[in-house]
Amino acid sequence: MARLTMEEARARVAAALRAAGAGDAMAAATARALVLAEAQGLGSHGLSRVAQYATHLRNGRADGAAEPALVRAKGGTAVVDAREGLAFPACEQAVAEAIARARECGVALVGVVASHHCGVVVDHLRPVAAAGLVGLGFSNSPSAMPAAGGRHPVFGTNPVAAVFPRRAPALPLMVDLSLSEVARGKLMVAAKAGQPIPEGWALDADGRPTTDPKAGLAGSMLPIGAVSSPKGAMLALVVELLVTALIGANYGFEASSFFVDEGNRPRLGQTFLVIDPGALAGREAFLDRLEVLVAEMLRDEGVRLPGERREALLAKARAEGLEVPDALLAGWPAA
Amino acid sequence: MARLTMEEARARVAAALRAAGAGDAMAAATARALVLAEAQGLGSHGLSRVAQYATHLRNGRADGAAEPALVRAKGGTAVVDAREGLAFPACEQAVAEAIARARECGVALVGVVASHHCGVVVDHLRPVAAAGLVGLGFSNSPSAMPAAGGRHPVFGTNPVAAVFPRRAPALPLMVDLSLSEVARGKLMVAAKAGQPIPEGWALDADGRPTTDPKAGLAGSMLPIGAVSSPKGAMLALVVELLVTALIGANYGFEASSFFVDEGNRPRLGQTFLVIDPGALAGREAFLDRLEVLVAEMLRDEGVRLPGERREALLAKARAEGLEVPDALLAGWPAA
Repeated sequence: MARLTMEEARARVAAALRAAGAGDAMAAATARALVLAEAQGLGSHGLSRVAQYATHLRNGRADGAAEPALVRAKGGTAVVDAREGLAFPACEQAVAEAIARARECGVALVGVVASHHCGVVVDHLRPVAAAGLVGLGFSNSPSAMPAAGGRHPVFGTNPVAAVFPRRAPALPLMVDLSLSEVARGKLMVAAKAGQPIPEGWALDADGRPTTDPKAGLAGSMLPIGAVSSPKGAMLALVVELLVTALIGANYGFEASSFFVDEGNRPRLGQTFLVIDPGALAGREAFLDRLEVLVAEMLRDEGVRLPGERREALLAKARAEGLEVPDALLAGWPAA
Repeated sequence: MARLTMEEARARVAAALRAAGAGDAMAAATARALVLAEAQGLGSHGLSRVAQYATHLRNGRADGAAEPALVRAKGGTAVVDAREGLAFPACEQAVAEAIARARECGVALVGVVASHHCGVVVDHLRPVAAAGLVGLGFSNSPSAMPAAGGRHPVFGTNPVAAVFPRRAPALPLMVDLSLSEVARGKLMVAAKAGQPIPEGWALDADGRPTTDPKAGLAGSMLPIGAVSSPKGAMLALVVELLVTALIGANYGFEASSFFVDEGNRPRLGQTFLVIDPGALAGREAFLDRLEVLVAEMLRDEGVRLPGERREALLAKARAEGLEVPDALLAGWPAA
């Protein structure tokens, strides 16, 4: 087990990605994002992705030489083409563009096309909150969930994220969730333990509800609340369209899984919506009123504000560094 | 039982609302919306609301003389003040404003403040789809659901709606859902039948999970998927902020229930987001690609496109008229 400062970890990740073929800017942006995720306790979107991204850079599923480019722009809207590279530099550019355009137009929507796995969606929105703006972020992912009433996977688990800035020193509210009932990891845990899963988590390969985690892993995940209603699947459909047909990216069902080495360039999409409260309620009124809601939520003892737990882990990682298993580091490409 | 054409029904509803104090434009816009809901099989948002709205007009919870006004505008954003009248004329104005601004800026976000019950959210977005644009709509409602981890109601059931236009003669995709696991009506049905409800539908008045529908009716509703995760509550929080602090409307917990006669002017909010695919993927590319997704969804036999069932009922009502119980008509104010 190695203990690395966040800066050391970023340098190691960037070096590994460069060794696999990523340009400097792509390696640096990706390293920042993966280390930030790891530091927040989000291992599945953290350092465990380095080997995967390196493999995709080496076998051509992601183009390490790609440089994102603004390819369309009008008023509050723009499209950034990730050009089949890793998603992070394109997402950074898109969010910066959306912030600038929201300041000008009050609202901005910027899409990223021809993109790859974008990690923790809400982290892309941190600059939005820092700018005092409200942000929403969406992405699709390789298909994992059926449409409402359907049996075969069509939509990704399609994450939704949002930030609402608060007056310093309060942290922004940071919402981040996928639209599957549970993460696939919960099925893996149950499968290892030989325990059944609740109905509503997954379908088997024939599209039938299952309580067998192995059958679920071979089948598809269900959207949130699927036992009662198609609402989760409908939300997944909305997100899928906002990040694909609307902006020019591929559907989740057109992309090969991120968890296999071979496959296509996924060409998936991300969409960021940035809104300036200054153009609507007014900046001070927004900040005042947000505190009224926070106080009302916190009247109940069990309530934790969204993002709080991650932020506490991040502060700890900044102070104490990250524990990184040697086996993980050993799997990374050497310069 | 009376059988009325939709036109007759609209005239009767408008007359009743005018008798209760609504101005002509407010009465007409509200009548159009309620009859449209009724015709789509959405009785809870249809003619059953006439008596409620009339009561609120008479006792001052809604101002029948109010005329909505554009009170702020910048680029792609605007705020329409409903001035404590019924919501429908203000929502009509906001959506028209959003369409015009999205054509100019590519994206537009328009809020309605000091508003009342807005009925079926997706119906407000019909003109968006007719204009070939993509629309999202949000509203809050008097508090009915706790925050994640909480015990007392903070958020409304906070509906989310979306429209995606298709090439004629195909109908637009029309998504419309509330963020509660189930509608309160399902608890009423179970209570009448003396049957338990599944865990995850409701909390009792002390904030404990309950399977007793009567205890649930006295307590609060749970957000979608609440048994497994706080995701539904987080989505409700995002919607709540988009329609309140961001634009200047009241929180759900600040508004008296719509189902009581006495109470405050709710001053709730609606927010409409309109996006022009022509500024992003391009209009033809968007329409082409949407059909690719529709075809993929329809590969499974059980899949029904969102909005299809409502549209079929609407076509039937247009052809055959509406069955309206005499008792309902008898409860309306006479001119």
